[in-house]
Amino acid sequence: MKSYRKELFFEVPTRRAFINITPQVEACLMESGIREGLVLVNAMHITASVFINDDESGLHHDYELWLEKIAPHEPVSGYRHNLGEDNADAHMKRQVMGRESVVAITDGRLDFGTWEQIFYGEFDGRRRKRVLVKIIGLSFNRISCLQLSVTALYPGWRQVPGPGV
Amino acid sequence: MKSYRKELFFEVPTRRAFINITPQVEACLMESGIREGLVLVNAMHITASVFINDDESGLHHDYELWLEKIAPHEPVSGYRHNLGEDNADAHMKRQVMGRESVVAITDGRLDFGTWEQIFYGEFDGRRRKRVLVKIIGLSFNRISCLQLSVTALYPGWRQVPGPGV
Amino acid sequence: MKSYRKELFFEVPTRRAFINITPQVEACLMESGIREGLVLVNAMHITASVFINDDESGLHHDYELWLEKIAPHEPVSGYRHNLGEDNADAHMKRQVMGRESVVAITDGRLDFGTWEQIFYGEFDGRRRKRVLVKIIGLSFNRISCLQLSVTALYPGWRQVPGPGV
Repeated sequence: MKSYRKELFFEVPTRRAFINITPQVEACLMESGIREGLVLVNAMHITASVFINDDESGLHHDYELWLEKIAPHEPVSGYRHNLGEDNADAHMKRQVMGRESVVAITDGRLDFGTWEQIFYGEFDGRRRKRVLVKIIGLSFNRISCLQLSVTALYPGWRQVPGPGV
Repeated sequence: MKSYRKELFFEVPTRRAFINITPQVEACLMESGIREGLVLVNAMHITASVFINDDESGLHHDYELWLEKIAPHEPVSGYRHNLGEDNADAHMKRQVMGRESVVAITDGRLDFGTWEQIFYGEFDGRRRKRVLVKIIGLSFNRISCLQLSVTALYPGWRQVPGPGV
Repeated sequence: MKSYRKELFFEVPTRRAFINITPQVEACLMESGIREGLVLVNAMHITASVFINDDESGLHHDYELWLEKIAPHEPVSGYRHNLGEDNADAHMKRQVMGRESVVAITDGRLDFGTWEQIFYGEFDGRRRKRVLVKIIGLSFNRISCLQLSVTALYPGWRQVPGPGV
């Protein structure tokens, strides 16, 4: 089993935004060399989300209005959390959209349906924030792994590339 | 570490439905032979959910009314996404109910509380849709694995079944 | 790959409560000895949540009011599920806040942003309920694992602690 970790950084100039981060997650997967496993993508901040949905601007406009209706920003004084802060609504919006997504990795690729894309949902922007990408899984087939290990112990052992390398 | 992948197919004749897919996921787990690990079950479509709750018809009726109140289908023209489509509400309902569930596997079984059941939540049906089941974990104990590997390299080596086989 | 499992128990004297369970999950991780991997923390009951957010009492007060507005407890008779029960609203609240969290483990620690804390969200308390902690990952580096395995097969082999032990 192999693991990989990377932080992605975002600084959104507006309070709220949806950013398609699928290319960055795909780049992480490529870099990891992992072929079978799971990737966890999560916001490291509690006023932001990572979620999977459609990359369609009309839908993102609808999400913005819908979330504002479910958990309105105003009146700011309507939330007890807002003492010296004004982001209580962002903590609610993030719960509706979720903190994390877990995606299957199959044959070295994100195992997605046709329209699935990964989004970073910012609900309290205008500052630098982080997303964590953690991947665990297999990068080699079992025989290749054993060959590598045996080579480490007996350097003279001839290493033959396995079918999965 | 071992991995397993299967797609489940659903074609719901109505726009919305909740289907208990626990038996199908259990069949996948059996087929995988994995005894310790995690199973990811996710909708591959962005107008459907996979979630864990109670298999009780009264509750499902309540969910239907509640989701329709939070994210109403009508008026269809109230959503900017609905240009040539009428499923914007389904994208909202799916966010409330979630895209995926991750379930622990212990001793070859779904490690569930008494009432936990896995559901496919359809919010825009009347067409064929897919659910992904991805399992990663251990199928053998460590000594058995090594014995198998050693046998692969030295065919004459006598393989003794380990306690976990 | 190694796996670890533990159940945590909670008996909340009120109907609803939010409890910070980060210390218990950290204790599980310590006990597991796993250094790289994923931890799944999930409610084993369908009227409770596990979620990640801020440990701030004002926010928890806001969550309580907000969830009650989205999915009110009263009138109890307004839910078809409430035949001999009165907890239909708890099944809704749990869907908004989520069943589970998956957290990355890096270098033997929960890989968290500054303010991330894990909470047990109770929506139908006054009875004993369970949370599952399941961890999968690597506890040793690869060479140490192989040394242990070789030692198991050839007891005379001298075992040298690897850098990751």
